[in-house]
Amino acid sequence: MSHSEDTHPQSISQPQTVVIAIDAMGGDHGPRVTVAGAAEALSRDTSGRLRFVLHGDEALIGPELAKLPALKAVATIAHTDQFIAMDEKPAQALRRKGTSLFAAITSVKTREAHAVVSAGNTGALMALSKMLLKMMTDDLERPAIACGWPNEKGGMGTVLDVGANVTSDANQLIEFAVMGTAFHRAVRGKDRPTVGLLNVGSEDVKGHEEVREAHRILREGVDGINYHGFVEGDDIGKGTVDVIVTDGFTGNIALKTAEGTAKFVKNLFKGALKSTPLAMAGALLASSALKKMARSVDPGAANGGPLLGLNGIVVKSHGGAEAWAFSNAVSVAISLAASTYEHDIRQALAQVNSAHGLKSDTVPADSVADEKVS
Amino acid sequence: MSHSEDTHPQSISQPQTVVIAIDAMGGDHGPRVTVAGAAEALSRDTSGRLRFVLHGDEALIGPELAKLPALKAVATIAHTDQFIAMDEKPAQALRRKGTSLFAAITSVKTREAHAVVSAGNTGALMALSKMLLKMMTDDLERPAIACGWPNEKGGMGTVLDVGANVTSDANQLIEFAVMGTAFHRAVRGKDRPTVGLLNVGSEDVKGHEEVREAHRILREGVDGINYHGFVEGDDIGKGTVDVIVTDGFTGNIALKTAEGTAKFVKNLFKGALKSTPLAMAGALLASSALKKMARSVDPGAANGGPLLGLNGIVVKSHGGAEAWAFSNAVSVAISLAASTYEHDIRQALAQVNSAHGLKSDTVPADSVADEKVS
Repeated sequence: MSHSEDTHPQSISQPQTVVIAIDAMGGDHGPRVTVAGAAEALSRDTSGRLRFVLHGDEALIGPELAKLPALKAVATIAHTDQFIAMDEKPAQALRRKGTSLFAAITSVKTREAHAVVSAGNTGALMALSKMLLKMMTDDLERPAIACGWPNEKGGMGTVLDVGANVTSDANQLIEFAVMGTAFHRAVRGKDRPTVGLLNVGSEDVKGHEEVREAHRILREGVDGINYHGFVEGDDIGKGTVDVIVTDGFTGNIALKTAEGTAKFVKNLFKGALKSTPLAMAGALLASSALKKMARSVDPGAANGGPLLGLNGIVVKSHGGAEAWAFSNAVSVAISLAASTYEHDIRQALAQVNSAHGLKSDTVPADSVADEKVS
Repeated sequence: MSHSEDTHPQSISQPQTVVIAIDAMGGDHGPRVTVAGAAEALSRDTSGRLRFVLHGDEALIGPELAKLPALKAVATIAHTDQFIAMDEKPAQALRRKGTSLFAAITSVKTREAHAVVSAGNTGALMALSKMLLKMMTDDLERPAIACGWPNEKGGMGTVLDVGANVTSDANQLIEFAVMGTAFHRAVRGKDRPTVGLLNVGSEDVKGHEEVREAHRILREGVDGINYHGFVEGDDIGKGTVDVIVTDGFTGNIALKTAEGTAKFVKNLFKGALKSTPLAMAGALLASSALKKMARSVDPGAANGGPLLGLNGIVVKSHGGAEAWAFSNAVSVAISLAASTYEHDIRQALAQVNSAHGLKSDTVPADSVADEKVS
């Protein structure tokens, strides 16, 4: 067992009431989007046991909330005078206790809330979450970020890490597999999601040392992980496996490359459909089908990246998210809070560590967030 | 200066006749595609100084060549009894001197040909090229593979390494920048291509140690490299820079992820345009514009990945390429052979090494190809 001091003991039973803390001031649009997004997530909920705490400036949140009676009935405002700017240094954010984000994360620590959602500054969110909530085990150096990734099978895969850990040893890759499995089960509802390790080929000899070592251990069998084997870049979109594990450097670049490619191809189609009068007429006829398709792969559908491995549930929304996209991040937080996710991860990590004697290197790994902090 | 023994001295002046060796037996389709592809590349050439040597089984190549009088006039067949299977182990391929690939690469070594093109087994091509031609300098452990990448600006970027070197230190990344610059200039005709280093963010502190060290050196200024700075995954498709430098692990995964994403989005559009009778009617009207667009981003347009850093020009085609795609790989070889590319790389590497005192680590790096060989 290598648990760190358990500052946030988690009940195994599902909570009766699910309380979601919203950093209402975070993101490019602030309360206009975060309050409406919370309302939209609420409208999809059928449990009747949701409560919201909206952290931030009452004078800005109040008017937004007044427009949304259903949300108003289950929400309270926790007023703060300050908020963290989108370009603020994490080191500075750590010292400002009066911000909406500080208060929202603290409410998860004190168990006033089951989860927090923020569209704010990623570096500040990472740093504050780690400082206030602490990592689940000593092996985990920092939270991993998971993201949803639509695939050809019409489902949504989970890819992690997409940016927090720019170098990852074999042990961390296995921890990502554990956390990704628990996340995918809780949010996508699949009991035994398949896991693939991202590599440059499918044979055992392919790839660098870390990925081959993780593959060796996972292939031998790790409790709770339904390991498929190595997968390649094109397997993400194919939906070959449910959970794709990689280091944060590769994961971040794969994600942004895919986003760029999707936009490029989409624009090519759009351009072609505007290139001649005949094509424009055709596009007009097909417009209803095209709109339906566009909605189904709106990047906002996959919005909501959890920071995995913390003592507490923290979900990151894209900063530029509009209300619908933000509502999807809130729904991710709700699914996690209503599940046994944290308990699953904690138990699985303990089993992995005792069975395989895994220990993290003592080499300080780099971190996108930490570098900003120091 | 850290040149290895110069087994293949390159003349600075452009060759009067350009001789291209074709591994006619390589690829999924053999002579049917390779011979027709050579003919198509020839048909685009205006220099009148091209010659081809088609290596492989005369009984299979002869009938294909007979159909193509223009090619027949400038081509000879170099008969071999053997060829390398697509799934053959590189270690085995190294020992079989009677294969079409062995003969074709040897002809570059003996200067009977200026370049070789093969759609065959990548591992065998890497291993044989390295054994027969040797690397240009001691610093280079193995060839890097560059690929063309269409971008939003309507141009074609160069990304390297996309698979040969699964770990890359700062020195190797700088060598990739040098080789990518020379390649892009020779093949895309841009005199001072801009170079970006692929990373998870654009600030100096982002990324792992290797990428930050390479950034530091490139920012200080390296002769002949027009360095832009860090770029992110979505910058590849945007065309932010001409040459994108990364390690082979990340590059391979980015490439395959992008290919998968492009296919996914394309299929979504196709599916939407077939989803209702109205959409189908629209697609019919727009079909001419859509076909034109599809052709412009056919992956075959970017076919032809050079193995960079060898004493000699070796171009890899996709194994599954059809004649048009194969012809583009042949055209890449022609552009390189007709340019001062090898001389440029050799000179630039010498300058970099003497100015910055770069030395490769002695740690044996992993290689996709080498692992198969041992």
